[in-house]
Amino acid sequence: MNEQTIPYKIYLEEDEMPKYWYNLRADMKNKPAPLLNPATLKPMTFEDLQPVFCDELIEQELDDTTPYIEIPKEIRDFYKMYRPAPLVRAYNLERKLGTPAKIYYKFEGNNTSGSHKLNSAIAQAYYAKKQGLKGVTTETGAGQWGTALSMACAYLGLDCQVYMVKVSYEQKPFRREVMRTYGANVTPSPSLTTEVGKEILRKHPGTTGSLGCAISEAVEAATKQEGYRYVLGSVLNQVLLHQSVIGLETKTALDKYGIEPDIIIGCAGGGSNLGGLIGPFMREKLRGEKDYRIIAVEPASCPSLTRGKYAYDFCDTGMVTPLQKMYTLGSNFIPSANHAGGLRYHGMSSTLSQLYDDGYLEAVSVEQTGVFEAAKFFAQIEGTLPAPESSHAIRVAIDEALKCKETGEEKTIVFGLTGTGYFDMVAYEKFNNGEMSDYIPTDEELEASFAQLPVVPEA
Amino acid sequence: MNEQTIPYKIYLEEDEMPKYWYNLRADMKNKPAPLLNPATLKPMTFEDLQPVFCDELIEQELDDTTPYIEIPKEIRDFYKMYRPAPLVRAYNLERKLGTPAKIYYKFEGNNTSGSHKLNSAIAQAYYAKKQGLKGVTTETGAGQWGTALSMACAYLGLDCQVYMVKVSYEQKPFRREVMRTYGANVTPSPSLTTEVGKEILRKHPGTTGSLGCAISEAVEAATKQEGYRYVLGSVLNQVLLHQSVIGLETKTALDKYGIEPDIIIGCAGGGSNLGGLIGPFMREKLRGEKDYRIIAVEPASCPSLTRGKYAYDFCDTGMVTPLQKMYTLGSNFIPSANHAGGLRYHGMSSTLSQLYDDGYLEAVSVEQTGVFEAAKFFAQIEGTLPAPESSHAIRVAIDEALKCKETGEEKTIVFGLTGTGYFDMVAYEKFNNGEMSDYIPTDEELEASFAQLPVVPEA
Repeated sequence: MNEQTIPYKIYLEEDEMPKYWYNLRADMKNKPAPLLNPATLKPMTFEDLQPVFCDELIEQELDDTTPYIEIPKEIRDFYKMYRPAPLVRAYNLERKLGTPAKIYYKFEGNNTSGSHKLNSAIAQAYYAKKQGLKGVTTETGAGQWGTALSMACAYLGLDCQVYMVKVSYEQKPFRREVMRTYGANVTPSPSLTTEVGKEILRKHPGTTGSLGCAISEAVEAATKQEGYRYVLGSVLNQVLLHQSVIGLETKTALDKYGIEPDIIIGCAGGGSNLGGLIGPFMREKLRGEKDYRIIAVEPASCPSLTRGKYAYDFCDTGMVTPLQKMYTLGSNFIPSANHAGGLRYHGMSSTLSQLYDDGYLEAVSVEQTGVFEAAKFFAQIEGTLPAPESSHAIRVAIDEALKCKETGEEKTIVFGLTGTGYFDMVAYEKFNNGEMSDYIPTDEELEASFAQLPVVPEA
Repeated sequence: MNEQTIPYKIYLEEDEMPKYWYNLRADMKNKPAPLLNPATLKPMTFEDLQPVFCDELIEQELDDTTPYIEIPKEIRDFYKMYRPAPLVRAYNLERKLGTPAKIYYKFEGNNTSGSHKLNSAIAQAYYAKKQGLKGVTTETGAGQWGTALSMACAYLGLDCQVYMVKVSYEQKPFRREVMRTYGANVTPSPSLTTEVGKEILRKHPGTTGSLGCAISEAVEAATKQEGYRYVLGSVLNQVLLHQSVIGLETKTALDKYGIEPDIIIGCAGGGSNLGGLIGPFMREKLRGEKDYRIIAVEPASCPSLTRGKYAYDFCDTGMVTPLQKMYTLGSNFIPSANHAGGLRYHGMSSTLSQLYDDGYLEAVSVEQTGVFEAAKFFAQIEGTLPAPESSHAIRVAIDEALKCKETGEEKTIVFGLTGTGYFDMVAYEKFNNGEMSDYIPTDEELEASFAQLPVVPEA
């Protein structure tokens, strides 16, 4: 199709929006390993998970055979308030780089939560409401997930209790206030409101918290209150399922204009964005129909895919969750004070871990100063101030486009711009003042962390 | 057209976006009064304005006869990065209110500046660049205009110097940091960098500043530096011209679906949003083709239309600008610390002032706590966290919809949602904590301010 006919922003019509989520696991030959009960080392059953998760979400979590699952009308109606998300052609970025590459990004930041997290938040809140629950508990790092869940709960009239990693709670008072405006109850984690929080504070009195700690607290809070369940914004299969709307919309928009991507790039913390973005593309790759390069980008300070071990591990620091087989740095790994809060997680989605292990996925790690350099450059050229997390993908997209400039290749690059950085200005200020540094864990640090991985005999 | 066929969000196609700005003054029988030179009390000429404004912008400022002015391609390309803005059908709000009214809002917040201000910022920066200037100076209150101008200047490679009202500079460090990320130089106003700033600080040592003070400083800075001009984000005719893209897109979207509005509502500080939103509708009203109700909403703490005088006055506190005939509270009026920063201006666009005086426009004033109540309600139902300024329009839109509920009338209400409140969380926090109060100036305060209006004999 003629270059000129591709608009800056491709918006699907409302009736072109997905009516089904896509379940990537259904097309995988090697399925992700099952969750294990840490006490028995047996696979978790529906009943095992019932005290923690909503019934219908457990079904989605365990279902690795149904490829398409219908999106309930109520959720589709909510999606229509902020979706479809635009697929943007980065004409200005291409011109500025002088690259023959064609760059597109799927922009998920046009909603108050500032990211793609809302796609799963509304789904999880919907099933909790449908089950007649009073409320849900969760953790949040950078605050995007907590905000998204608060928005979904306010809309449905559910109580929302958020454990927010203490360092974010303090650095991002405005994020906290957005959640409060949506009626959520926000507690800095670790806190004295849970047993596991007290225990962590006893062991590490000065700790500024981590996602892993906050998960432990939120799970405990859910199981101790009548009518509450725990919800999680990443890592889980169900979250990747809900996030498939990102990839499905992207694919439909590309197909509409006859565009074939060569490279698909997404940042990866727990894997929710990347897993959602790549879904329908990975489907074609798994079926041998297409051969896209698919790249996961993670911070050098928390490199679970590129330097982690593929092993069973706890999903949290307090060791209260089931065991999941994944690329992990060890649930005791405390990442440095990297500002890309959403990527500071020790593990990785089991689905993405399996795909990576099977060679369907590449992974690269990038350092924070290079990420912010790309972020600032992108903001000035493309207008949108990106979240630090998303900027990991920008960094690699720019690097790939510059390679094309050298080789003259006209590759088509698609990346996920998961969100905006409006609540990350403390980090931008550090970068603007030249006060930001990089941190890469040493092999010794990682080995020490791996040594504490739980021992699980091969099945 | 069938109810069901109207989507939640109406996006125009790229080729349906306006190619011309609409100049409302061309259709007014009573033209806005000319700017006067404060020394001679004679109308300002092109030459009088040349030291302050770019040439092409002066032409636009003085042109009250050309109805349509072509938008340069470079500006249209920039618009395509964040426009068209969606016209949203507030289905959820309607349901929650139980009103038979149909509510639409034009949402201008989907860009990093967080508001409609970018529409004029890129235009003004473009003409400065075209004239070969080095940079521009400006003031900002809430920070949306300053951010917008920083973005436009970064894109075009122009220097950008922003005088930011001190109270906002301190309350909104993150806004400042966004501007710095876009390469702008931000100075808290009043400052010691200008003569007028020094003078204001001598007279009012503890002042936290005002838009009027910051304008004085920015104008002085522009005229003292070689290759610089001053740009302004509201009030001026040229700004209303550029902002007409809001109304033109809104009208095209409504026409496309055969929707006829009954009431059009916009918040009004200096008048840039309202003037832009109502343009093509007011055109039909001026020509006697339609009879829309058009409502300006202002804060009760700064009620220029509802309680001001229609008189010649300075546009700034330092009395360095030309005189403009407008509804004004007096250039010495210091509004209370109302958090809707962008509406804290003593005057009003001369175009809107004339339309109001001629009875084409209604005006109402609303109190801050009622505004935040509406803002929070809207956020929880419609998802988007609105700017306090925009929430003035939400308040009145809800009030009108509730009147329809009483009478059973199925009116169609369109309002302007000018921006997001992500950088206004200090104000939301105050409201969430029950610490927000209202303030309405007394008649005595206003009389004292009116007594200082400049004496200008009737022409």
